[in-house]
Amino acid sequence: MRGKCMVRVAVLGASGYTGGELLRILALHPEAEVVAATSREYAGKPIHFVHFNLRGWLRGLRFTAFNLDDILRRDPDTVFSALPHGVGVETTRQLYEAGVQVVDLSADYRLKDPEAYVRWYGWEHPYPDLLEKAIYGLPELHREELAGARLIASPGCNATAAILSIAPLVKEELIDTSRILVDVKVGSSEGGSKPTRGSHHPERENAIRPYEPHGHRHAAEAEQELSRLAGKPVKVSLVPHAVSSIRGALASTHAWVLRETGSQELLRIYTSFYKDSKFVRIVYGTPPGYPDPKYVVGSNYADVGFAYEDRVGRLTGFAAIDNLIRGAAGQAVQAWNISRGMREELGLDYPPLKPL
Amino acid sequence: MRGKCMVRVAVLGASGYTGGELLRILALHPEAEVVAATSREYAGKPIHFVHFNLRGWLRGLRFTAFNLDDILRRDPDTVFSALPHGVGVETTRQLYEAGVQVVDLSADYRLKDPEAYVRWYGWEHPYPDLLEKAIYGLPELHREELAGARLIASPGCNATAAILSIAPLVKEELIDTSRILVDVKVGSSEGGSKPTRGSHHPERENAIRPYEPHGHRHAAEAEQELSRLAGKPVKVSLVPHAVSSIRGALASTHAWVLRETGSQELLRIYTSFYKDSKFVRIVYGTPPGYPDPKYVVGSNYADVGFAYEDRVGRLTGFAAIDNLIRGAAGQAVQAWNISRGMREELGLDYPPLKPL
Amino acid sequence: MRGKCMVRVAVLGASGYTGGELLRILALHPEAEVVAATSREYAGKPIHFVHFNLRGWLRGLRFTAFNLDDILRRDPDTVFSALPHGVGVETTRQLYEAGVQVVDLSADYRLKDPEAYVRWYGWEHPYPDLLEKAIYGLPELHREELAGARLIASPGCNATAAILSIAPLVKEELIDTSRILVDVKVGSSEGGSKPTRGSHHPERENAIRPYEPHGHRHAAEAEQELSRLAGKPVKVSLVPHAVSSIRGALASTHAWVLRETGSQELLRIYTSFYKDSKFVRIVYGTPPGYPDPKYVVGSNYADVGFAYEDRVGRLTGFAAIDNLIRGAAGQAVQAWNISRGMREELGLDYPPLKPL
Amino acid sequence: MRGKCMVRVAVLGASGYTGGELLRILALHPEAEVVAATSREYAGKPIHFVHFNLRGWLRGLRFTAFNLDDILRRDPDTVFSALPHGVGVETTRQLYEAGVQVVDLSADYRLKDPEAYVRWYGWEHPYPDLLEKAIYGLPELHREELAGARLIASPGCNATAAILSIAPLVKEELIDTSRILVDVKVGSSEGGSKPTRGSHHPERENAIRPYEPHGHRHAAEAEQELSRLAGKPVKVSLVPHAVSSIRGALASTHAWVLRETGSQELLRIYTSFYKDSKFVRIVYGTPPGYPDPKYVVGSNYADVGFAYEDRVGRLTGFAAIDNLIRGAAGQAVQAWNISRGMREELGLDYPPLKPL
Repeated sequence: MRGKCMVRVAVLGASGYTGGELLRILALHPEAEVVAATSREYAGKPIHFVHFNLRGWLRGLRFTAFNLDDILRRDPDTVFSALPHGVGVETTRQLYEAGVQVVDLSADYRLKDPEAYVRWYGWEHPYPDLLEKAIYGLPELHREELAGARLIASPGCNATAAILSIAPLVKEELIDTSRILVDVKVGSSEGGSKPTRGSHHPERENAIRPYEPHGHRHAAEAEQELSRLAGKPVKVSLVPHAVSSIRGALASTHAWVLRETGSQELLRIYTSFYKDSKFVRIVYGTPPGYPDPKYVVGSNYADVGFAYEDRVGRLTGFAAIDNLIRGAAGQAVQAWNISRGMREELGLDYPPLKPL
Repeated sequence: MRGKCMVRVAVLGASGYTGGELLRILALHPEAEVVAATSREYAGKPIHFVHFNLRGWLRGLRFTAFNLDDILRRDPDTVFSALPHGVGVETTRQLYEAGVQVVDLSADYRLKDPEAYVRWYGWEHPYPDLLEKAIYGLPELHREELAGARLIASPGCNATAAILSIAPLVKEELIDTSRILVDVKVGSSEGGSKPTRGSHHPERENAIRPYEPHGHRHAAEAEQELSRLAGKPVKVSLVPHAVSSIRGALASTHAWVLRETGSQELLRIYTSFYKDSKFVRIVYGTPPGYPDPKYVVGSNYADVGFAYEDRVGRLTGFAAIDNLIRGAAGQAVQAWNISRGMREELGLDYPPLKPL
Repeated sequence: MRGKCMVRVAVLGASGYTGGELLRILALHPEAEVVAATSREYAGKPIHFVHFNLRGWLRGLRFTAFNLDDILRRDPDTVFSALPHGVGVETTRQLYEAGVQVVDLSADYRLKDPEAYVRWYGWEHPYPDLLEKAIYGLPELHREELAGARLIASPGCNATAAILSIAPLVKEELIDTSRILVDVKVGSSEGGSKPTRGSHHPERENAIRPYEPHGHRHAAEAEQELSRLAGKPVKVSLVPHAVSSIRGALASTHAWVLRETGSQELLRIYTSFYKDSKFVRIVYGTPPGYPDPKYVVGSNYADVGFAYEDRVGRLTGFAAIDNLIRGAAGQAVQAWNISRGMREELGLDYPPLKPL
Repeated sequence: MRGKCMVRVAVLGASGYTGGELLRILALHPEAEVVAATSREYAGKPIHFVHFNLRGWLRGLRFTAFNLDDILRRDPDTVFSALPHGVGVETTRQLYEAGVQVVDLSADYRLKDPEAYVRWYGWEHPYPDLLEKAIYGLPELHREELAGARLIASPGCNATAAILSIAPLVKEELIDTSRILVDVKVGSSEGGSKPTRGSHHPERENAIRPYEPHGHRHAAEAEQELSRLAGKPVKVSLVPHAVSSIRGALASTHAWVLRETGSQELLRIYTSFYKDSKFVRIVYGTPPGYPDPKYVVGSNYADVGFAYEDRVGRLTGFAAIDNLIRGAAGQAVQAWNISRGMREELGLDYPPLKPL
């Protein structure tokens, strides 16, 4: 059914949750043809051996162990890499140098400042030159640079929610940018597909559990992007909490205003900032009143809203996303669509499911 | 974007969960144009006032109170009725007589025997003649009769799972049809969108709760359809249990064999019975081993499987469905596609989401 | 088995969740005899008609409609009132004047400043004199005043968690008290036992939903108590979020330090502040690392901890409680024990359940 | 506080879920003193390192690696063994021969017929003589034999629920004992504390998943005990399903009647059978209508009920238990209480929590 002019794509790290969502989305994408899916652990197995939902889909495809030559032999136009942080930094460079477009979903190419890798990730980045060339794949902030991009660094899920929740206010210079506090609540799929003691169902269900509250790495991305918007250094503190859902992340970004404001002005600021963003929906004035990840799950939407407590001058921006779609695979495909001049919504143009 | 030759559809009872899923599926359906959505309670409100997921979709549409003339004035080709049992029995007939195709998702036209309505629903059916004309909308059993059907009675969710789980064995005359026990486990969305004491989150979450265990109405449908397959009366006892999920239903249909059998024969029987069914997937031999609604949620698939305990001659057929899609809105659209000579999978051709 | 010298207690509003927990705890309390339990809706029914868990307990008791004379005729020493806010303000005064000790679990007597009722609750408090006499029933802050108290105003659940999470740092003058941000995550039981559209299981499960983010009432209690500790006005902004659990609340109280600090100093401050508090446990240095309501549910414990991000000078105090026990019924009994010179832990001296 | 006359108890396999519940229950038991808790993995760690709920309890105690001499040196009166099946078969015998009372919570001594171990567990039992001496620790069936018992084989959780649900009808000879079908629904804690791919939260939550549907081992226990009651061989087929709860198991035991019956007779049969059972509660005629594990969680109760569909002669007995308490640790302590002539309810005498 699919023609010869389709874009040939490969997915690295395809047996994890992000990899699975990439496969699902690309299997439905009218311009993509999946030519390879790698997994060390499941090499040789059919896709549905791991992704039970894909039974009956991508029928010819089996996982293969990663091997650069093998990948290149399949002649992909684009490689989506869902390898863990640090694991694919070399691979990404090799593919890039071989002329293959890379959409890297790890943190490996997200930060512009090489020293930030030392500070936040504990390793020296081997390819600072490539950091400059990578485009941070948040379409709402980098739509123009994404056109034609050959290396896209797809944002982290917490960072995506954090940035989308507060970007309009940072840009508007409405808030004190020295004290931005992002309190994130996320579902269990954010931890990936590998079982751990903390992810064991009896231990994970019903949890309301802070993790890495001493300073989470995604703050680095949020600071980088918001500072760029503000035109000056912005401080972001990010505290994630694991809650019971499987999918979904809500960033409640608390800040203090520099001057008085009100709902109408805030609505105008948010609406105006996102006026060209097909995958951002402003939630205001109708039920449920504020963004709730529950009502975006299964889609690439970010629902964005706000609340203002004038008594104390505190303002909260909210952004709700499906962490595996808008926070990972969906956003990667959205940025990729833009990079290749395709319609931004291609393959992503469906609403969330409710109730879910 | 959509042309003049699209099928004009109206949805009655559109503010409930089944109505919401119909709207979602039809909004994406390449051949459907939604011309009306009725709701007594929310008349005048935009669709996303109730279906938060549909924010940004079906933009021109608002709920209207049901009124026959008003509906007819919009000139629908098909009316999907998601009204509660008994409420729309008159409306369905009026629409049918006005020449409109009706897909009725209530129980009102599912049973062929008018007396069954007295026994199971406690009222005398006013239009026994129409019962004869209605086609039971389970595509796997009635694909041929559905072609051109003007009145489709879409099956109940428990009945769908029950029938799909065991139909091949009934047809094969492998089991004792006087003692079929369907033990169903269902999520909370099956109870509809109206809050009750039992559906209050603190009371409903973590429940494992039998309901109507003295004899559930969907047994009537299952008996009717399985008897037809068997060519003789079949007895079905159906005991549903409310469990914690929101979506999903699993029928574990326990029966006793009339002769010895084994996995290979069973696999052959199931595979052969469903060989033309695009929305039935046989789960056998690879993880997770048996059907689990978790891995069909968000899709129109029924995952079907079986287990045989030869020590006691007990056989269990399993069918896992998304109760709102394969158990309601999706199956209705599937049957409707067939009825109009469209491709059976149109608008339903996507895999489930995982993890969810 | 129980003797004549037991304390006679009545529970008003006994059919709700807080009322049910009061009945459960008092049924097990070695010094309490429950002589009445009121409920308008369930008058005449046995206790287990509503509280299914109490089947076989409090056998002689039935709900009665509230009537002052009837209550007084039963000669209670103490009345625990779990009536909704505003409903029992008159009753509490009448009982108090009749010489009955009252433990009021509503907000009616928590605030010292009568004008705060106008501001936060929208009504003028009719008995400002009684506000002065009421003791705020947070044992960690008012243990001495509780001895002999005749009117105890039991704290709100969010306020309890908020105050316990940060009180040591406020007292120590370590943080900027003009910008305290309490981000609370709570389970569904906090909304009470009455079904609503938002509490309907399919809508409530998987939610991560801000509510009243423009300024929540419990901030008033937290400001009152923390200001008292600080000896100067403190500003508290409190933003609650509904998450999927049934029980449990976590307050993540974010603040900025006035000077550098470190884990060892923080540990010393917290440990020292709570050294006499049998129901506060400091979580530090062993798994799970930070407080999680999951591991206090079913008990009267508050698990308290902290995290410090020196890079930005942000400090977070955490407090995890079972909102129905430490946030309501348990804490009320704890304060009551103190008020009557009984051992503080009486009837509450058991660990949480795990896993739960 | 505790005197010299307390019973000295040790817990083997104390870091798992059953071990944790044993420690919790024994820590509160007025006649027990915990003198040892073994765990290979956590030897040397304090109890709360694993059982976060027990922070502040059993303060002096640390896990020790299992060593027979070491255990004997601590001079325990009773050893509760929560070791996995097969692992402690030798240890149990050694302790027994050393004169120590053993309550074995594994399957190692539950079956009387040595050949059943070959058939169901795949190994030859090394001590058939000891099988004869062991008492099956289901108090409702073996109360008299438990008095003075030196080796108690505590029942499996599914078997407990299965037997309690249907025992009265088997005894009464009301049902066809050649076709008893036990459909069990259980929470995730039944799988133990070890993380697996299937127990990973994103895979386990929302599951409705049959497991071992070809024939589950607990059927062996149920057959043994029900055959004994019936005075003739009984056939039991048991099909468990994993559902979303953490705790709780419901057995829905479906059977066909040999003669007509009705609710009043059934109520009489159940009530009469359990008239001396303090931990069995008959649920009939008041909400929630049928047993639901939700309302026994946190307690040692089994809630038992039934439903009869006369149309087809099908009868279902229900039993709802907390799988870790009535299905494991609580029942073990209940049987132990009886064995030592203590009050049966000692240390277990509290109601469930609601909502939970």
